[in-house]
Amino acid sequence: MDFFDAVESRRSVRKYLPEPVPREVIDRALSAALLAPNSSNLQPWEIFLVSSPEKRGAMVTACLDQTAAATAAELLVFTARTDTWRRNRAYLLKALQESGGAPDMILKYYNEIVPLMYAHGWLNALGWLKKIVFSIVGIFRPVPRGPFSNAEVKSVLSKTVALACQNFMLAIAAQGYATCPMEGFDPCRVKKILGLGRKSIVVMVIAVGRANPEGIYGPRLRLDPELFLFEV
Amino acid sequence: MDFFDAVESRRSVRKYLPEPVPREVIDRALSAALLAPNSSNLQPWEIFLVSSPEKRGAMVTACLDQTAAATAAELLVFTARTDTWRRNRAYLLKALQESGGAPDMILKYYNEIVPLMYAHGWLNALGWLKKIVFSIVGIFRPVPRGPFSNAEVKSVLSKTVALACQNFMLAIAAQGYATCPMEGFDPCRVKKILGLGRKSIVVMVIAVGRANPEGIYGPRLRLDPELFLFEV
Repeated sequence: MDFFDAVESRRSVRKYLPEPVPREVIDRALSAALLAPNSSNLQPWEIFLVSSPEKRGAMVTACLDQTAAATAAELLVFTARTDTWRRNRAYLLKALQESGGAPDMILKYYNEIVPLMYAHGWLNALGWLKKIVFSIVGIFRPVPRGPFSNAEVKSVLSKTVALACQNFMLAIAAQGYATCPMEGFDPCRVKKILGLGRKSIVVMVIAVGRANPEGIYGPRLRLDPELFLFEV
Repeated sequence: MDFFDAVESRRSVRKYLPEPVPREVIDRALSAALLAPNSSNLQPWEIFLVSSPEKRGAMVTACLDQTAAATAAELLVFTARTDTWRRNRAYLLKALQESGGAPDMILKYYNEIVPLMYAHGWLNALGWLKKIVFSIVGIFRPVPRGPFSNAEVKSVLSKTVALACQNFMLAIAAQGYATCPMEGFDPCRVKKILGLGRKSIVVMVIAVGRANPEGIYGPRLRLDPELFLFEV
């Protein structure tokens, strides 16, 4: 499907027809998801396809019994990990070495800058220290203003995983199926169902299926672009 | 361009050729951005195209003089607003009424649930109260676990704006141009350049231009999908 047709045709669909979605459709969209740009290419995502009937039932409850979750052919949970950056960095550096070595700038970035971004120490001691130092240096010259805490790391990672979510949803639309990104869920229960710990963040639950026309509540409602677009 | 070709061809390009990007290309991508799904359809985004030479120069400095920013044909800043939900809600409800009235469920959602999500009161008093109530109720049944503070609202909004960013970047790729999403910038200085206040969040700065082959540092490096995809 043409790119712009995919963007135009994507709607959040809240009710699905009782029809399966072929596994190839899901797999192709997942491959697209993993091609999203992401913070320092550290690929912090983990994506769960919920297949087992009991987990699926529990997920519908955790999604507050929304019709989108209850009628979806497939439910996927997009999560971020705050701790896989060390493992992924090792893999990236190995792959770079095998492909002929990485420039010094890249090595310095991964070995010095990245830990400075992700490591915050006990009781966020390192995070506070960073915040103080950057605030002072920032008076004199431009500096990044975070992440200075685990909460801020979570925000950065959620943003990165959202880029993958959008690739996924458009890729499903491009194949003629529909999605619904859900925010109304209980992340504590979702984590329990998936066996996730403190290092995981539930970013989005996405329902997938063949659209039931009743699942589209009305024409697409977008406000005047002049409210949102500015040239300065 | 075919949707999957656009996804495949999108790379983060860190150096651009000295060639302008036609305004239609940017405008079409901005229209695609505004079609992204978003939290409660409250369209919290504000997108700035930086055109004036002095603002543009200041932006390059605020982006820590990254080559992507310095050589880009265009620089855009994607931001979120924490306060436009009231205005946008009023417009949405008006549009729904004009198109024949909204179901009670939708009215209840916008009039009762949405303020509960976005309003946190003085010193976050309402946020803390919500957190306590939801934590207690959450022992017995699934409940949303936020946003319970302005920081959490910011995280929700950043996620929503990231969906628009990805639509934008893919739409640029679909038209044969390239982008670089940037995180390495000083948000305080960016806000100052754009005249933004406390209610704005700088989500992403995106460079746009015709790719200089030197601006692609190597083949796309994605780790084994088995590290990221799980069926449960």
